[in-house]
Amino acid sequence: MSETPDSPAETGLRAPSGARDMASRAAELDAADPLAHTRDRFVLDAAPDHASGDASVYLDGNSLGALPRAVAGRVADVIAREWGELRIRSWTESGWWTAPERVGDKIAPLIGAAPGRVVVGDSTSVNLFKAVVGGVRMAGKGCTEILVDATTFPTDGYIARSAARMTGLAVRPVEPARIADEVTERTALALVNHVDYRTGRLNDLPGITHALHSAGALAVWDLCHSAGALPVGLDAHHVDLAVGCTYKYLNGGPGAPAYLYIRESLQERFESPLPGWNSHTDPFAMDPAYAPAEGIARGRVGTPDILSLLALEAALEAWDGVSIEAVRTKSLALTDFFLECVSAYVPPGRARSVTPYDHQRRGSQVSLECPRAGEVMDELIRRGVVGDFRRPDVLRFGFTPLYTSFADAERAAWVLGEVLGALPEVGSGTAGTGG
Amino acid sequence: MSETPDSPAETGLRAPSGARDMASRAAELDAADPLAHTRDRFVLDAAPDHASGDASVYLDGNSLGALPRAVAGRVADVIAREWGELRIRSWTESGWWTAPERVGDKIAPLIGAAPGRVVVGDSTSVNLFKAVVGGVRMAGKGCTEILVDATTFPTDGYIARSAARMTGLAVRPVEPARIADEVTERTALALVNHVDYRTGRLNDLPGITHALHSAGALAVWDLCHSAGALPVGLDAHHVDLAVGCTYKYLNGGPGAPAYLYIRESLQERFESPLPGWNSHTDPFAMDPAYAPAEGIARGRVGTPDILSLLALEAALEAWDGVSIEAVRTKSLALTDFFLECVSAYVPPGRARSVTPYDHQRRGSQVSLECPRAGEVMDELIRRGVVGDFRRPDVLRFGFTPLYTSFADAERAAWVLGEVLGALPEVGSGTAGTGG
Repeated sequence: MSETPDSPAETGLRAPSGARDMASRAAELDAADPLAHTRDRFVLDAAPDHASGDASVYLDGNSLGALPRAVAGRVADVIAREWGELRIRSWTESGWWTAPERVGDKIAPLIGAAPGRVVVGDSTSVNLFKAVVGGVRMAGKGCTEILVDATTFPTDGYIARSAARMTGLAVRPVEPARIADEVTERTALALVNHVDYRTGRLNDLPGITHALHSAGALAVWDLCHSAGALPVGLDAHHVDLAVGCTYKYLNGGPGAPAYLYIRESLQERFESPLPGWNSHTDPFAMDPAYAPAEGIARGRVGTPDILSLLALEAALEAWDGVSIEAVRTKSLALTDFFLECVSAYVPPGRARSVTPYDHQRRGSQVSLECPRAGEVMDELIRRGVVGDFRRPDVLRFGFTPLYTSFADAERAAWVLGEVLGALPEVGSGTAGTGG
Repeated sequence: MSETPDSPAETGLRAPSGARDMASRAAELDAADPLAHTRDRFVLDAAPDHASGDASVYLDGNSLGALPRAVAGRVADVIAREWGELRIRSWTESGWWTAPERVGDKIAPLIGAAPGRVVVGDSTSVNLFKAVVGGVRMAGKGCTEILVDATTFPTDGYIARSAARMTGLAVRPVEPARIADEVTERTALALVNHVDYRTGRLNDLPGITHALHSAGALAVWDLCHSAGALPVGLDAHHVDLAVGCTYKYLNGGPGAPAYLYIRESLQERFESPLPGWNSHTDPFAMDPAYAPAEGIARGRVGTPDILSLLALEAALEAWDGVSIEAVRTKSLALTDFFLECVSAYVPPGRARSVTPYDHQRRGSQVSLECPRAGEVMDELIRRGVVGDFRRPDVLRFGFTPLYTSFADAERAAWVLGEVLGALPEVGSGTAGTGG
């Protein structure tokens, strides 16, 4: 992982590309795109059309992924046949009971995990609690602190503090780049975001994990903004615990269930703070004494939320035959091209990128700082370019390689250039959720 | 609440009703049923037909409620339009963000709560953890123990023990009928099932709550097997905290999100052990410091699971114009009639009820003990009568007044009589989940 600093000044936009026709470049890139065919697996608006001025570009898949075509039919069948006709029999006959592990195994290859290491269910926040408390309980007896990514999406910090309070430890916020220097023999674990939700900075998962292990601490990664956008390599890098959502680059739907990864060698030592009956070794024994299940089922809690879980399972069909490496290649090409288009179309000085230019440190979004960013995003959305706004001054544009085209990137930058070239007098406040 | 003991011997089935034609009685009762019309709000098989021998009777709504007709269309629209077309805009424009409180307010009247006291999301187990830890934190400083219903559905005990471990308290199992005698000034709270999942016994919520309060302890109720089947009266009885699932008598679908009730006067003192970003007073401030929301939103955790939550919202339309008192009246009439039919049809000595005969102590299910109960239930299901089996020897039959008819009850008892009259040589093991 590069040691290049990424202060805003040093990651500023490159010089305009001059007279080159970016729209033609986009068409060429789309024609050569080996993932162009997967766009049809999603429900999207018509492609952007320069001639008509109709721009409908969705660059908010880092908040809520677009709808995969397979979802509607699958959910209709789950409701009408599995629930409506088979009813209770579906817990066995339709595979409902085993869905948390089965869907986990479908996510696993996208994050570099072997089967049996990922279980789906509950929200990201709830899984963070399981991971942090479970991690503390596996850590050495003398540990007194949890390190938390100082730039984290806030829920990670809130949950880490609650877990620390309930296990008698302290929380210390540390910049991800400083973790290797700050970790001590008193550190139980560090909870770190793989990609920063605000800037799109990719943190050094292999390096930070190794540094933590060298000090005897566990590495707990939040994959919300990386899973489905780039290779994660959980098994390869010996990550201990990880959590992630499924509604961003995995396109599982609004608030779709999250997942928990537990390294195979740690599973038998994992003690969940949420030992619901679904994680019992024999749930239907209705045993008053808790005995945890073997393997990743130990990460389950209550009865799985079947409609959402099976919607997610259908959504994951969009990955059939797709390698995460190909996704990463296209992701970098898209964000490179978008930054280039922004340089070409946006008047100098009107916006600057806070996303690292270095490929080694970039996720799959581009975040631009500009004045009156809330109003700017409102206007972009009115003109059909949907990104989102994070206070106080960040425009976020997410690039989902399975369905975002180079034409989308070019069109978005063109509209952004128009809007920033003549800052309109408009209201503020935008929709959005999911970090 | 009656003090009548309910040992199996004293709640045994009544004598056969003689020559009275139970099928005709059922038809009369159905014709006079003021809730007969709500059956059409659900997708069910054809009514049982004695002439054809075709018996399709669903008596497992206490595990998984049948499908309400309103669900499929609503979910299809949520997927195709709200997610597929509006995408991220739906968090505000389609009311996704406020759905946990809005759906909570729709459940509230069914459990005797005013608006603003119920929030929907997460599983029952996760809500139990919030309620027990939150309750302990509101209890007196000198408290050292949590009382847990000794006959509880096991997840309540598992979660209570985890909460106790993490807050430094002990857990003491106590029979519900003994709580008033066992509570002491060192008791932080008691976690009690309103209706016992196995026997269908209704515990004395007003009396136990009052006894706990008299000792300075909080009352935390699990409503999984009572909500939607009988009046609960949370506000009226000054219950402190309550949780429940929505997939039994509320028909929200498999694993549908659960809910948390917090008494109004306690909400500002409630400190959640799961302070996710959705419970922050200003979630989009992305504030590194946690500041809990006012009111019941404080019980939220992560991003709400929209597909399941809105399926539940549609399911709750089945309650339009229905009073929970009318439901209770029919529930008791149904279980009375079923017990009478069982007495008439089942050979003497082949089964005995473990459900209290006293109306004051009966929920909305009938549980019968018999030898080889697993095999018996398998055979019942093969013949179209769907109840469920709980080890080692209990047959459970749930009665959902919104869609169960007296003809269903009569037909189920008739088939049960046939099966118990000639115990078949069949395999064992049945499907089912949800407690």
